[in-house]
Amino acid sequence: MHTTRDLSVALASGLNDADATVQSMPDASPVKWHLAHTTWFFETFLLRDTRSDYRLFDDKWPFLFNSYYEAEGARLARPHRGMLTRPTLEHVLAYRAHVDAALERAWSDLQEHHAALLELGLQHEQQHQELLLTDLKHLFSCNPLGPAYREEGPAPSTSVAAELRWLEGPSGARTFGHTGEGFAFDNEGPAHMQWLAPHALADRPVTNREWCAFIADGGYETASLWLSDGWDWVRDEGVATPLYWRGEGEPEARETFTLSGWHPIDLDAPVTHISFYEADAYATWAGARLPTEQEWEAAASGQAATGGVQLDRAEAVQPRGENPEGDFASLYGNVWEWTGSAYRPWPGFRPAPGAVGEYNGKFMSNQFVLRGGSCATPRGHVRATYRNFFHPHQRWQFTGLRLARDL
Amino acid sequence: MHTTRDLSVALASGLNDADATVQSMPDASPVKWHLAHTTWFFETFLLRDTRSDYRLFDDKWPFLFNSYYEAEGARLARPHRGMLTRPTLEHVLAYRAHVDAALERAWSDLQEHHAALLELGLQHEQQHQELLLTDLKHLFSCNPLGPAYREEGPAPSTSVAAELRWLEGPSGARTFGHTGEGFAFDNEGPAHMQWLAPHALADRPVTNREWCAFIADGGYETASLWLSDGWDWVRDEGVATPLYWRGEGEPEARETFTLSGWHPIDLDAPVTHISFYEADAYATWAGARLPTEQEWEAAASGQAATGGVQLDRAEAVQPRGENPEGDFASLYGNVWEWTGSAYRPWPGFRPAPGAVGEYNGKFMSNQFVLRGGSCATPRGHVRATYRNFFHPHQRWQFTGLRLARDL
Amino acid sequence: MHTTRDLSVALASGLNDADATVQSMPDASPVKWHLAHTTWFFETFLLRDTRSDYRLFDDKWPFLFNSYYEAEGARLARPHRGMLTRPTLEHVLAYRAHVDAALERAWSDLQEHHAALLELGLQHEQQHQELLLTDLKHLFSCNPLGPAYREEGPAPSTSVAAELRWLEGPSGARTFGHTGEGFAFDNEGPAHMQWLAPHALADRPVTNREWCAFIADGGYETASLWLSDGWDWVRDEGVATPLYWRGEGEPEARETFTLSGWHPIDLDAPVTHISFYEADAYATWAGARLPTEQEWEAAASGQAATGGVQLDRAEAVQPRGENPEGDFASLYGNVWEWTGSAYRPWPGFRPAPGAVGEYNGKFMSNQFVLRGGSCATPRGHVRATYRNFFHPHQRWQFTGLRLARDL
Amino acid sequence: MHTTRDLSVALASGLNDADATVQSMPDASPVKWHLAHTTWFFETFLLRDTRSDYRLFDDKWPFLFNSYYEAEGARLARPHRGMLTRPTLEHVLAYRAHVDAALERAWSDLQEHHAALLELGLQHEQQHQELLLTDLKHLFSCNPLGPAYREEGPAPSTSVAAELRWLEGPSGARTFGHTGEGFAFDNEGPAHMQWLAPHALADRPVTNREWCAFIADGGYETASLWLSDGWDWVRDEGVATPLYWRGEGEPEARETFTLSGWHPIDLDAPVTHISFYEADAYATWAGARLPTEQEWEAAASGQAATGGVQLDRAEAVQPRGENPEGDFASLYGNVWEWTGSAYRPWPGFRPAPGAVGEYNGKFMSNQFVLRGGSCATPRGHVRATYRNFFHPHQRWQFTGLRLARDL
Repeated sequence: MHTTRDLSVALASGLNDADATVQSMPDASPVKWHLAHTTWFFETFLLRDTRSDYRLFDDKWPFLFNSYYEAEGARLARPHRGMLTRPTLEHVLAYRAHVDAALERAWSDLQEHHAALLELGLQHEQQHQELLLTDLKHLFSCNPLGPAYREEGPAPSTSVAAELRWLEGPSGARTFGHTGEGFAFDNEGPAHMQWLAPHALADRPVTNREWCAFIADGGYETASLWLSDGWDWVRDEGVATPLYWRGEGEPEARETFTLSGWHPIDLDAPVTHISFYEADAYATWAGARLPTEQEWEAAASGQAATGGVQLDRAEAVQPRGENPEGDFASLYGNVWEWTGSAYRPWPGFRPAPGAVGEYNGKFMSNQFVLRGGSCATPRGHVRATYRNFFHPHQRWQFTGLRLARDL
Repeated sequence: MHTTRDLSVALASGLNDADATVQSMPDASPVKWHLAHTTWFFETFLLRDTRSDYRLFDDKWPFLFNSYYEAEGARLARPHRGMLTRPTLEHVLAYRAHVDAALERAWSDLQEHHAALLELGLQHEQQHQELLLTDLKHLFSCNPLGPAYREEGPAPSTSVAAELRWLEGPSGARTFGHTGEGFAFDNEGPAHMQWLAPHALADRPVTNREWCAFIADGGYETASLWLSDGWDWVRDEGVATPLYWRGEGEPEARETFTLSGWHPIDLDAPVTHISFYEADAYATWAGARLPTEQEWEAAASGQAATGGVQLDRAEAVQPRGENPEGDFASLYGNVWEWTGSAYRPWPGFRPAPGAVGEYNGKFMSNQFVLRGGSCATPRGHVRATYRNFFHPHQRWQFTGLRLARDL
Repeated sequence: MHTTRDLSVALASGLNDADATVQSMPDASPVKWHLAHTTWFFETFLLRDTRSDYRLFDDKWPFLFNSYYEAEGARLARPHRGMLTRPTLEHVLAYRAHVDAALERAWSDLQEHHAALLELGLQHEQQHQELLLTDLKHLFSCNPLGPAYREEGPAPSTSVAAELRWLEGPSGARTFGHTGEGFAFDNEGPAHMQWLAPHALADRPVTNREWCAFIADGGYETASLWLSDGWDWVRDEGVATPLYWRGEGEPEARETFTLSGWHPIDLDAPVTHISFYEADAYATWAGARLPTEQEWEAAASGQAATGGVQLDRAEAVQPRGENPEGDFASLYGNVWEWTGSAYRPWPGFRPAPGAVGEYNGKFMSNQFVLRGGSCATPRGHVRATYRNFFHPHQRWQFTGLRLARDL
Repeated sequence: MHTTRDLSVALASGLNDADATVQSMPDASPVKWHLAHTTWFFETFLLRDTRSDYRLFDDKWPFLFNSYYEAEGARLARPHRGMLTRPTLEHVLAYRAHVDAALERAWSDLQEHHAALLELGLQHEQQHQELLLTDLKHLFSCNPLGPAYREEGPAPSTSVAAELRWLEGPSGARTFGHTGEGFAFDNEGPAHMQWLAPHALADRPVTNREWCAFIADGGYETASLWLSDGWDWVRDEGVATPLYWRGEGEPEARETFTLSGWHPIDLDAPVTHISFYEADAYATWAGARLPTEQEWEAAASGQAATGGVQLDRAEAVQPRGENPEGDFASLYGNVWEWTGSAYRPWPGFRPAPGAVGEYNGKFMSNQFVLRGGSCATPRGHVRATYRNFFHPHQRWQFTGLRLARDL
């Protein structure tokens, strides 16, 4: 528990109170809010609900730091999270310490009777660690000064990405979803059979260099490449590059905003900060398609989920080029990979009981599944069966794509 | 061909020029536009593209009556379709006659070399016949006078709907999609295997009487029953009943707008004009779920697609209660049944080549599949593999639901 | 009365039911609605309120054809006026005949006891005659076919506009507002003193030729010429010419949409279909300013209000170049002249009692005063004290400008 | 100069970096931005433009802290001012010190050759001091915790407001606008004649107690009291009280948010945080009207502009009940008084030359004039001829009203 809880605090280190307070768009939340909300989760579902002697740190804070649990009552409207200049960052850190201490005192009992909730709280906190970084990146990108979260960024890719290879995947009837013993979210189950058609996956994600070729070929101006809703989005928003790019013309003339400020694009790294619509249009342009989430899961189930570029410590994470480990490069880490699968329940899905049952099921419309984690996902968090999901226009996460095709 | 082309004209009979011109919302199109657009399809893809001697009825009309085919060039923006007070309805009918005569002259040649396109044109026209009726219904519903399309409406259901029975469906590997010889849209293919989990379907759609119980139980005010996007929709739009209902309280006090004006609700008829969000919330409330499109297709593949309440002639169509024919009632006709399946391509899907390839594939995001046709679907148009699709908030079509559950 | 009532019917002649039904934007109303609403005014305030034996033509129509009189109860929301495909145009004309006949029967009594209301009803109808033409022009402009209301348009200006001359106006204390015996709206009174500073007015309105020079000089791209709200409007709406212009470059290459279709711009006619923001920016560019409404009224009080280009019969009215009659050209008729005066009450203003008191006073915010009538104003309707008003961004009326400057 | 510059710093004391950074709505700006923008004004127009040896504190900051001066080039879009978590508050204070020191060094020369600009810079800063307080109040009001800017608030009114008395004002021709020697903004001139009709003004502003009577009498639900645009605003926004009120029913049950947190309403203090629309509706309800700005100026010209409740130091300012000093109470200070005058130029108005000429003139549409200063106006800033202006729906300033009537 300490590892996870401490990482959150480390991620916030070096930020001033203002950095931790401002909300740059309705989709994003302030750092301070992430720190407090993850703590509220433990306070509410572990301490308040199970420890008769626990007293809330502050009676008014549950209203501030509940996110969307209707069953937990009234809460601050999401777009107003940025109004909380008080409590201060310091005060929120004291809240964390208070709750951590209470958890410590109750530890053995909680471990015995509420281990699943404890685990859920930690997994939940890991999710917010990723959001904390991507939300902060968005905020800093809105500042014309382009401030760096950490002065030092990751080294750029050291070698040119090799030509893409196609790897045939398994086909026929096959079991999907979470089967094992370890932790999984309710949306990963139950285990069930599905049928895969013959197909192949690319051995690595699409790179920035390849994306530049798509741009140069008029990808953003060619209606026939796009889904109808995607074409509307491109025109309404005036989209012509991935998020956080600036500069025009040759690939070498383009820069991207990172957690260490503005830098030339790393052409051999996986492209990132693209929407589902962009990923789908690229795949069409390339004569391919996006993989289904089952195809991705079948490929990934034999790979170590802890490998690759993932979050280990509070630094300026950014995707970078990798050579295949085994057959595939970067199935885990680097960029979340958009799949062509709409986010819907597995056969037999049942939401978890109680308020935590609002966690996943109620978002199962109008979103697409992403798989594999990113450079901002805490190492150890993601699994082969892990289902992330976002709306098809959203792209402030570290999102990318891997091509697939029918055989 | 005459049957289909003539039905369109019959559907417009009795309307004045104004009825045929006004667009009541961006989703809907004017009657006049439906009549002209279906004709434009034949003129463009059959006559212009294959008959060197054919001269366009009017050079400017393709701009007016192209719908969304990017490959066919500029076109009138969809929300402006209602500005076309000229050409008149009479002029549009002359356009139809002109094109019909040219088709007649070219008939044997077209049948020989372009039969697939001819068939597509007729199927396309049947789709617009259904839209013509539902768009007109919406327009008339916006008029405080509540005018009737036809004075005489269908007889209400004659018997009380029987208690719902659950019928177990097939499970395991099974072939889906269009396999046979006859016509099908590109999105129905290719035939492919999928795996069905054990499940049961209700033997009939949910009725208005059952829907009234959902309302009485606070269905529209209970957040936990709804998808998150659905709950936002309910609150933003102030939704508290299906579309076209008025009156409050007891079921008997409620009325609905039909193509023959305002009438008491037919309590034993299938509920209609509901969104996917409403269908999903009802299913949750009933302890069930929506069927997948595969479950529906498996059930329907043994049924005659031409049975049930479907469109035969220009009248004031409206769903009505039916007894099961064989195991099921109303799989075909009466109401389109929302499935729980997001509208995405079948494995191996390839859009048709050319402009007509924009017909289906580019809409494969943010929509859900409906199956089975409705009372406004021309009899003979629908099939077991037929995939209709709408956005989850839309409900001006004759949409309803059938429950499913896991076994 | 016949003259006015008959002109409305004449204005609608040649239109089909669709032309008379469609509403092209929320600011505009359908022809059918204008015809019925003006009739409703007579039916409500003259017949219903004063004739115990009068029976409404249809009980439901007052709901349809009340415009904004809160005191008269519920009414159709303004943006839904275009949904009334029924009643038909023919039915509305029957309504007019019914009410006209009842007025005829009651004539001598109404003349004796309700002359003021009768007069108000006719003046009200004249206002709607102008709106009928400008609303219809807007509708036809939305049709890519550019239909003509009347095939034949007015002859273009026959001579080049003479160089603009400045005419000094009166200064010092002076009486304004309606003083005489004849009809006036409540917002024209009471008569009162105001003080004029030394100033001069241009002897004619700004012409299309002059406006082209403003465009060529970058008028629409120069922020410093514009009011702040105006500059926002220009950029948000992408405004670069008056409404209804098309073509680029040289003045001769530009066309404008008129009630007789698309025509080359009449360069010596007054510019029209400009917003207050445009008028103000032009005046700043020209080193001048807009006149106050008092300056305009002082200039106009010595001129015959019935002269100039005004509406006499149902034709394709359009401004055209005029030589000064006496000192000034086109003070009356041709184009409504934007003044620099916000529309606010005269000192001592009291709204008329009863529902008709909602006629003018409640609109006295965020609008600017226009003076002098236009080519679409029925001759005889306008006066020196007449105050028209629109929001500063609106420009579908025949609006233009005359320059003023301080002395 | 020190007094004014130091007061800004004092106003920001006690705020953390977050308080000083967040923008609560597009109309408001962050405290940090106010501190920097006022400094930018001195740096740009005094130091950069007149001192060849001056070096900018930071080359990138002009982009951040220019407000709306088009002539001064590109600038941060207004709604993004809240994204500036960097520079820190501490850094901005260093900027202030840097510029103050440079001004100090250049002082005698600036006094001699640029005294008008220096004065303008200080007056400009005083305006932002008021905005700093009202913007901060709005921000704190958005925090469910309702934090206090200063713990201690002003003492509530000590006596019951006396019955309102009417005082006749001067009538006939009279000089208005700035005539004297001292500082004035360009919009206060030139001096000119206007004519006043016979009228009377109330001897004090409307109080909270009187406003409660308006509410109790259904003021917010009675369409006939409101301007048409105002009625739309009331319904669209669901307005039922002044801004910052909570609680329902009896006056004693209502509270208001102040700079010292939530407090019971001070019933004998002037009502504040009302829009022009509300002020106008109240006046109509009371059988009166709003004064014109000329009537107000005529009344105020004999009063000492430095009296009453105005800003002297960094405290939790709030209006409070005053007895008349001479004839009138609270003409100056307490609340800005909405007049019935649209904000338009005086006869002969010329904007100041150069970039500072954008200061006032370009806002002369769609706004109304307020007079007399408020409890948040730095004492010494306001004058009899001072013209403040806001849009008619805005109410986050300390705005109130005084009644007038015709005689």
